[in-house]
Amino acid sequence: MQGAVLHGPRDVRFEARPEPTIVEPTDAIVRLSATCICGSDLWPYRGANPITGPTPMGHEYCGIVEEIGRDVTGIRKGQFVIGSFFASDNTCPHCQFGYQTSCRQRTAVIGAQAPMLRVPLADGTLVATSDMPSADLIPSLLALSDVMGTGWFAADAANVKPGVTVGVVGDGAVGLLSVLAAKQLGAERIIAMSRHESRQTLAREFGATDIVTERGEEGIARIKELTNGVGADSVLECVGTSESMAQAIGITRPGGTVGYVGVPHGVELDGANLFFRHVRLLGGPAPVRRYLPDLIGRVVSGRMNPGKVFDLVLPLAQVAEGYRAMDERRAIKTLLRP
Amino acid sequence: MQGAVLHGPRDVRFEARPEPTIVEPTDAIVRLSATCICGSDLWPYRGANPITGPTPMGHEYCGIVEEIGRDVTGIRKGQFVIGSFFASDNTCPHCQFGYQTSCRQRTAVIGAQAPMLRVPLADGTLVATSDMPSADLIPSLLALSDVMGTGWFAADAANVKPGVTVGVVGDGAVGLLSVLAAKQLGAERIIAMSRHESRQTLAREFGATDIVTERGEEGIARIKELTNGVGADSVLECVGTSESMAQAIGITRPGGTVGYVGVPHGVELDGANLFFRHVRLLGGPAPVRRYLPDLIGRVVSGRMNPGKVFDLVLPLAQVAEGYRAMDERRAIKTLLRP
Repeated sequence: MQGAVLHGPRDVRFEARPEPTIVEPTDAIVRLSATCICGSDLWPYRGANPITGPTPMGHEYCGIVEEIGRDVTGIRKGQFVIGSFFASDNTCPHCQFGYQTSCRQRTAVIGAQAPMLRVPLADGTLVATSDMPSADLIPSLLALSDVMGTGWFAADAANVKPGVTVGVVGDGAVGLLSVLAAKQLGAERIIAMSRHESRQTLAREFGATDIVTERGEEGIARIKELTNGVGADSVLECVGTSESMAQAIGITRPGGTVGYVGVPHGVELDGANLFFRHVRLLGGPAPVRRYLPDLIGRVVSGRMNPGKVFDLVLPLAQVAEGYRAMDERRAIKTLLRP
Repeated sequence: MQGAVLHGPRDVRFEARPEPTIVEPTDAIVRLSATCICGSDLWPYRGANPITGPTPMGHEYCGIVEEIGRDVTGIRKGQFVIGSFFASDNTCPHCQFGYQTSCRQRTAVIGAQAPMLRVPLADGTLVATSDMPSADLIPSLLALSDVMGTGWFAADAANVKPGVTVGVVGDGAVGLLSVLAAKQLGAERIIAMSRHESRQTLAREFGATDIVTERGEEGIARIKELTNGVGADSVLECVGTSESMAQAIGITRPGGTVGYVGVPHGVELDGANLFFRHVRLLGGPAPVRRYLPDLIGRVVSGRMNPGKVFDLVLPLAQVAEGYRAMDERRAIKTLLRP
């Protein structure tokens, strides 16, 4: 088969890769209906995360089970499944506590930008839909694998509940879908920070009630002004830089919460500042597995359509163009058809 | 009157101070039944927080209302009252949200190591008991003003609930009373970290089920061992140093929470470490005012006796000895009788 392999900064190639096979008896092989490029793929693509050799790319996936290992009992051949970017056993104490991305057997899912994928710990990782979904649902179901699940965790970690005021830092795909998550969870007011018109439009479509274009101290002042000087109850940090984290902390009301899902790159937090601001923090790799059953239900029933975040659809063979478009911010998120 | 004044490192004097008077119409003057020395008083006492001139000391208090300003309507002369170390209006958005120590009108209460005290924003700050308490209740009621309220916030911020496993970092008065708070809030297991026998004894009396004497990596390993490798659900950080915060984060299970009430001194947190550990954080100056009505009820009904934390009682005139005893860790906490 042919799939995406990163060879160095901005050098992603569509090239021959061995077809995956069952390695462990708990594995499944999935034939992908669709895959995509994640904002976090851009860190190694841009050289910010060094790679040591040719690296198969991709960790977002959904599709049809092609084969299962002999110990797999909960998933059957022919089912349509979605899984998280981290495989988990879903039985260890951390999984039972709802943090499957801290599973004791946690294993990264690698190489999903391909027609076929090996998923370890299939019983704990994959969730099957009850029926075969129609083609128009595929983008939204694919989004649950990471980007929507991550936006959902940002909102959940930040305690979004009916009636609250939410601030969203970051207008990438995760930021936009965290707006959608906040809306689904009942937020009354959702203030999205964005300077890009197409992203503002999508943010509004997903439920943003206010758009703030200012950044830094001006952005903080603007959100304070919009909230009668109080700040937001729940702030969703979807970038991962020092600036974005400072922005998030700065717009949170005392006793409010920052849910942060941007992988921190060089973020140092001043303990005394957090202390005197009374800001609650929770972040991490989203425990997508915890949310999947609920989120699949919301998609299948038509209550939400996170697939709208894909504004570029390409054949998998054009994966390199998909990376370029996201790197240059011409596309919010690229869906790839194997 | 005579009260405690800090002149420089380890130089606290019992000397003449002007008797407080009503300055603002929202003030009350309280004749103190008892006062005490706080662990946080040791920071300036030891020269860790610089002072710019002679500084009246003390911020923990309870006693009888002697006089009220003309705008005070909720508190009457002759009532027995307890208040927080920060005065608050209890009506602003931050107070209504339960974070009175972030009140928009927040004012530090200063000079409580004295017979008489001016309390600003009396209506929002002071809580009166329904009856005049008996003398034996005074130490426990005094403790609510800060040390017990702070231990309570540590437990509440760390999500202590019935059945959870709690870790406590710090065996000072706040740490010990956070053990008591965790017990009152229904924790099933409370692991206190302490190397001092008298403090271990009090920790057990307050509800600790396990004592860990190891520190650093060994302490983390010991608590992991005690919890089947999982870590604690709720960790109460009651010191405020980089070491104690690292200890607290290190013993928290993924998805667990650190409630930190030790005022951070030089604490820097690595965003990526918090992220990949899935540790939730909330700290700050305890919003004692939020808890006072509940805590007064627990003391008056005999359900808890935080006053046991005072292991040295001195006449106010001997305040300097009270500081020395705490500085040298001969005493856990000193109660002073005006």
